[in-house]
Amino acid sequence: MRALIYDEHLHLDTAVPLPQTQGDEVLLRIRRAGICNTDLELVEGMYNFSGILGHEFVAEVAHGPEDLAGRRVVGEINIACGHCDFCLAGIPSQCRNRQAIGIHDHPGAFADYMALPARNLHLIPDSISDDQAVFVEPLAAALQILEVVHVTSTDQVIVLGMGKLGMLAVQALRLTGAEVIGVTRHKKQVDLLSRWGIPATRMESLATQQAQIVVDCTGQAGGFADALRLVRSRGVIVLKSTYRGLPQVDMTQVATREIRVIGSRCGPFGSALRLLEAGLIDVTSLIDAHFDFDNAMDAMKYAREPGVLKVVLDF
Amino acid sequence: MRALIYDEHLHLDTAVPLPQTQGDEVLLRIRRAGICNTDLELVEGMYNFSGILGHEFVAEVAHGPEDLAGRRVVGEINIACGHCDFCLAGIPSQCRNRQAIGIHDHPGAFADYMALPARNLHLIPDSISDDQAVFVEPLAAALQILEVVHVTSTDQVIVLGMGKLGMLAVQALRLTGAEVIGVTRHKKQVDLLSRWGIPATRMESLATQQAQIVVDCTGQAGGFADALRLVRSRGVIVLKSTYRGLPQVDMTQVATREIRVIGSRCGPFGSALRLLEAGLIDVTSLIDAHFDFDNAMDAMKYAREPGVLKVVLDF
Repeated sequence: MRALIYDEHLHLDTAVPLPQTQGDEVLLRIRRAGICNTDLELVEGMYNFSGILGHEFVAEVAHGPEDLAGRRVVGEINIACGHCDFCLAGIPSQCRNRQAIGIHDHPGAFADYMALPARNLHLIPDSISDDQAVFVEPLAAALQILEVVHVTSTDQVIVLGMGKLGMLAVQALRLTGAEVIGVTRHKKQVDLLSRWGIPATRMESLATQQAQIVVDCTGQAGGFADALRLVRSRGVIVLKSTYRGLPQVDMTQVATREIRVIGSRCGPFGSALRLLEAGLIDVTSLIDAHFDFDNAMDAMKYAREPGVLKVVLDF
Repeated sequence: MRALIYDEHLHLDTAVPLPQTQGDEVLLRIRRAGICNTDLELVEGMYNFSGILGHEFVAEVAHGPEDLAGRRVVGEINIACGHCDFCLAGIPSQCRNRQAIGIHDHPGAFADYMALPARNLHLIPDSISDDQAVFVEPLAAALQILEVVHVTSTDQVIVLGMGKLGMLAVQALRLTGAEVIGVTRHKKQVDLLSRWGIPATRMESLATQQAQIVVDCTGQAGGFADALRLVRSRGVIVLKSTYRGLPQVDMTQVATREIRVIGSRCGPFGSALRLLEAGLIDVTSLIDAHFDFDNAMDAMKYAREPGVLKVVLDF
């Protein structure tokens, strides 16, 4: 089969053996996959991963139990052990022995086939298209913001970083009724935000200590410094970002201004599917390009260009 | 009057004019004062303060309204404007126009006399000695940990940094019934913790991701790194520390492990007085030395020596 592999360098291999399923794994035939910033970071060696990349996907079950065979599915990316303290506490995404497809210790979805435990799968309702379903994983990650901080309709929320994740985060957040502001200077993002009725602004228009909640989706150390400036004392900064290296952070200000910095990561797939089915989140407008998987190398290159939102791989 | 002044260098001045009271300020005659790490940081120029140092004190009202005259008092260190959004929200310690005695824009308590608004004062019950009352401010700061995070009797809490603040924090925390562990290798601290029935341990005896809550009272950037190692995923790090400069921080781990970093600062004086009156916090054991105020320069020098806990100035 074909697979996009990173092992010190990135290459599309066309003669990779089919994955062998083990235990309760099913064999998935990938239909669509999305390129995430994490994929771009992985090929810079940021997480010491080597293997088949990819964790945003839509697939059909090629080989598995009768109730799943042939069905369209998305899959949770964390493969949890099921017996550590976090798994037993109902937090499998923080499993101590966690594998993550295409990220940590498990082959990913940028391949014709992938093996994944049946318990990781979610059936896709017929009303949700493949192009929508490829956003279930990142939309779930955006929804996780609301799992870690209680946002109410009287809050003002500033979202920094209107990339792929930020553009989902603003949509998820505005469903609370809160006043959500997206910070961007890209015309495409401004136009989309305007279409959704979400105010877009530039950093320099925002006041110091303006908002109770600031969400950092920038992926840049500078994003945290901006968040510190914009958040009110006693307010909350939600970190959706992973950062290159160890940024220098003004922790004294966090202490004296009694700010809460809350990390947030993978989220609830079921909720993402419900919101897509209800038509409450516009995801297809975020697709900048489709590439046939044969051109995956070009797709990865294109995904890295400034301002590009979602790049989808078609199988 | 005498006053310990920092203005690029530290000096004891014996001919400082008496402070003039304004508005609802009363004139306080200082009886005792405590040296805090913040004072040591201030004389390193960390906060750009110049003037009379000192913010932990016991005083008697030398000149003020009849119901206060001659009474023993402690005083909140933040002088709030009373009309900004934080003041109106009942959070005067985060007042946007805040002064703080001996720290920011207001003369401090290392002087024979100090002026302070009457609304900042708390009467000291007769059963609380001057030596105890000098700890009201730092004990209140320790109690603020419990204002910003809900600690319950089933939690395990690790406190890093068994200095003046950490030794109060462990005592405040163990009143919740939680399993509290103090991390120290100083014999004096180990002996005191043992007397209080609080387990003391060394850093190397602690497991990775051991505790749900880790409190950093180290004042060192390395303290935050240790806290990150010790806290469970989805756990809480409480920052009581101010840090020199901008430490490098692994914010990616905060994001992916969904950790909550919560700043905590000045706390409730009334609660500190109640706990001291109830005999539930041992503060006098933390006094390492008394110095007559004439020897304040020596006292500041002694307070800086490794392992020294509270140094008290007698007026």
